[in-house]
Amino acid sequence: MNARVMCSLPNEQVTEALAKLLELKAQLGTNDGKQTFVLKTPKGTRDYNPKQMAIREKVFSTIINCFKRHGAETIDTPVFELKETLTGKYGEDSKLIYDLKDQGGELLSLRYDLTVPFARYLAMNKITNIKRYHIAKVYRRDNPAMTRGRYREFYQCDFDIAGQYDPMIPDAECLKIVHEIFSELQLGDFVIKVNDRRVLDGMFEVCGVPADKFRTICSAVDKMDKMPWEEVKNEMVAEKGLSPETADKIGEYVQLSGATELADKLLQDDKLSQSKVALEGLADMKQLFEYLTFLGVEDKVVFDLSLARGLDYYTGVIYEAVLVQNQADTQMQQNEHCEPVGVGSVAAGGRYDGLVGMFDPKNRKVPCVGVSIGIERIFSIMEQRMEASEKKIRTTETQVLVATAQKKLLEERMKLVAELWKHGIKAEITYKKNPKLLNQLQYCEETGIPLVAIIGEQELQDGVVKLRVVSTREEVDVARVNLIEEIKKRSCQS
Amino acid sequence: MNARVMCSLPNEQVTEALAKLLELKAQLGTNDGKQTFVLKTPKGTRDYNPKQMAIREKVFSTIINCFKRHGAETIDTPVFELKETLTGKYGEDSKLIYDLKDQGGELLSLRYDLTVPFARYLAMNKITNIKRYHIAKVYRRDNPAMTRGRYREFYQCDFDIAGQYDPMIPDAECLKIVHEIFSELQLGDFVIKVNDRRVLDGMFEVCGVPADKFRTICSAVDKMDKMPWEEVKNEMVAEKGLSPETADKIGEYVQLSGATELADKLLQDDKLSQSKVALEGLADMKQLFEYLTFLGVEDKVVFDLSLARGLDYYTGVIYEAVLVQNQADTQMQQNEHCEPVGVGSVAAGGRYDGLVGMFDPKNRKVPCVGVSIGIERIFSIMEQRMEASEKKIRTTETQVLVATAQKKLLEERMKLVAELWKHGIKAEITYKKNPKLLNQLQYCEETGIPLVAIIGEQELQDGVVKLRVVSTREEVDVARVNLIEEIKKRSCQS
Repeated sequence: MNARVMCSLPNEQVTEALAKLLELKAQLGTNDGKQTFVLKTPKGTRDYNPKQMAIREKVFSTIINCFKRHGAETIDTPVFELKETLTGKYGEDSKLIYDLKDQGGELLSLRYDLTVPFARYLAMNKITNIKRYHIAKVYRRDNPAMTRGRYREFYQCDFDIAGQYDPMIPDAECLKIVHEIFSELQLGDFVIKVNDRRVLDGMFEVCGVPADKFRTICSAVDKMDKMPWEEVKNEMVAEKGLSPETADKIGEYVQLSGATELADKLLQDDKLSQSKVALEGLADMKQLFEYLTFLGVEDKVVFDLSLARGLDYYTGVIYEAVLVQNQADTQMQQNEHCEPVGVGSVAAGGRYDGLVGMFDPKNRKVPCVGVSIGIERIFSIMEQRMEASEKKIRTTETQVLVATAQKKLLEERMKLVAELWKHGIKAEITYKKNPKLLNQLQYCEETGIPLVAIIGEQELQDGVVKLRVVSTREEVDVARVNLIEEIKKRSCQS
Repeated sequence: MNARVMCSLPNEQVTEALAKLLELKAQLGTNDGKQTFVLKTPKGTRDYNPKQMAIREKVFSTIINCFKRHGAETIDTPVFELKETLTGKYGEDSKLIYDLKDQGGELLSLRYDLTVPFARYLAMNKITNIKRYHIAKVYRRDNPAMTRGRYREFYQCDFDIAGQYDPMIPDAECLKIVHEIFSELQLGDFVIKVNDRRVLDGMFEVCGVPADKFRTICSAVDKMDKMPWEEVKNEMVAEKGLSPETADKIGEYVQLSGATELADKLLQDDKLSQSKVALEGLADMKQLFEYLTFLGVEDKVVFDLSLARGLDYYTGVIYEAVLVQNQADTQMQQNEHCEPVGVGSVAAGGRYDGLVGMFDPKNRKVPCVGVSIGIERIFSIMEQRMEASEKKIRTTETQVLVATAQKKLLEERMKLVAELWKHGIKAEITYKKNPKLLNQLQYCEETGIPLVAIIGEQELQDGVVKLRVVSTREEVDVARVNLIEEIKKRSCQS
């Protein structure tokens, strides 16, 4: 499943040129010392610092909880596959695959998505039904606009249901999952567009598109969320050699959107009802909307005939979730002359009933439907929000710092912190023999540690620990024997 | 930190030849159909199935909890680095690095460990102190014995403390962490061997080893846990050109092991006390043992002069945790003519004060000490145990299956399961319009779902749900309004 956004990149060249300049600058800057190499991560990649990791963990946890709530297992596959495993699965995009150097042995490529490895896994292990999620990094030698949260190394977060089941039941659950995740993440309003590969194919057929042009016309249709119909039509006619009449016929359909009543209308449509595949697709679409109503998510789902996802392997229903841009975002976008990350596709997927068969020696099919959550987009939006809100994000979970104002108490600090660890308390000491109290308190302020357990000669003699609340500076003596309990109690409250 | 086990591989060639045969066989087997490619994962890699993932999650959670208890943050870095970032960091092992194909642009290599990327990260971001863990896969073009839990793609699980602190305080915490993790994992008895690069260097110096032979003699000493001293001596003399007298002098030292009293004895040693670096190392070793006593972990730590970890970048204390083999394990080993995975190094690390400076244009040093938990070994042991115990591992967390014995109730099942999801209950339905009750109950047995919520016309009329306990077959009618509460109550009990 590819959940990346296809968006027009007006200033891609500028971004590219800027990156090159920065690289050259970095090289110049490091030539003065003994070091002559560039200190950077590879193009299109980034490190995650502790703050970004904290956000990442939060988002993952929401999504994984949803997958588990729906009874999914998880699997993992290697970061690279035999080159031939990926061959012929991605059409034109195959040029974006990272190959490994031939160092003797097998020819390998980094995975391009998680769907093809999943299909390989099913075929190899002869698995005919499974509900699984897989969260892992994939690799594409693209020229991504990193300011918009796109990278060459990025996470995919896939949920798929494989197995021979009754039509549209697993498909409806995938949409339910998208609905649950984006409701919970609270990134703003969203819409899930659905369509069906068979409806598209039937539509092209009855409009008179030659069979060998289905794919290329499909990718033209896919641009309708970024450009007006007239431009798309122009591309079909001028670039792709369609007659203006055929293009106009397509235009009539692809500007339609609605819900189950649209499926009804199209089932009665003089032309479209001539196509057997279209009728199958439309009947399933009606069924899907019924199930979505039972699951309580029909409010966010739109049957949109212009949705035409690019990947070759889709065979039935396809869908894409987009965040709905609000007024404030639009203004920000105009001010900064760039597309905000909040816009565009945040989840996508569909049914692919033929992919597993491509890996099976006897071409045995395993029907699959799945969805990929556009997790990198979600990270970017969350990061922007955190920065905007200036709310401090904690990157550790430490509950208490064991501290002292006096010298020569390292032994006592070590003994106390070991006692806390033993009882499952998250605790730290500073790594100095004789640290200053002020520095220890400052460390708590900086890292958000809420409590300080202070010991000195007097406390040791009295069998107590001075427990200080960092935020209020309030201090209270707690009997050493009650310390664990007291810390646990206070940690629950906050 | 490299926590892989160095062990002698007598039948490595056999394993290799067998793998080749299997590969050929696989190729032959798939030539009968239309498919002509090999259906496998790349050499030295594997998929993780849901059961293995369940074990993996359990182990990760124990380890991550420990790291968090000690106040660690986490970071992530890309799977590949600029090739030059890795150059000159791994000595002879550099030949095991996976390079990416030159497809235009930068030359890239897959990361070989997490330590060099960590050092690059610190230097690049000018970070002078951090306590972080990093769990991620690393890549080595080795010929691993996969039966012993070794792979070309494998996890590393690193905890490191960077910063200018008082001697041995962070070092002692690293050992404390190893102690906590292996106590909690309950893999059997373990010992943590410690030594110091400076003690080794001082020892070589006073024994008369030429400076340019320190490294190669060091790697001979490192074999002392796999072969008797006489063989190691022979390697030093015959292969590495040391005089027998020099070798014997080394032999006197490297056969010593003990604790703080050994450090005392060596501080008084006529020869060794001539070496300034050795004295520094020994003084720190004494200090370390004192701190380990304060932290309550001195019982498992042994000062072992034969411990000589191979990596170039260590500058001070080094350590390695090994599982102590018990009698039963030994017998299994002899029966199966192979080394059991339970033996050997399960964690390793040390101090590397110079590595970050290698990346800094001005060679500014950031002292570091860290440990790598040998997580793949731990997985293998846990997997073996699970298989041996025949205990069923659940791969999902589903609490309840919404089921029916009657036809035409998909709508009601969907509405009920959606209600459960809404309240955070982990629930499933089967993806059939009219499933048989027996099949639904069987699904629960197979996947370990403890409860079934059964609805039929009667239940719907009465406003109840029949709640069935899978293990006891006991059934009870629960008012629909109380269902959520009842499921939550029962899930807490089990």
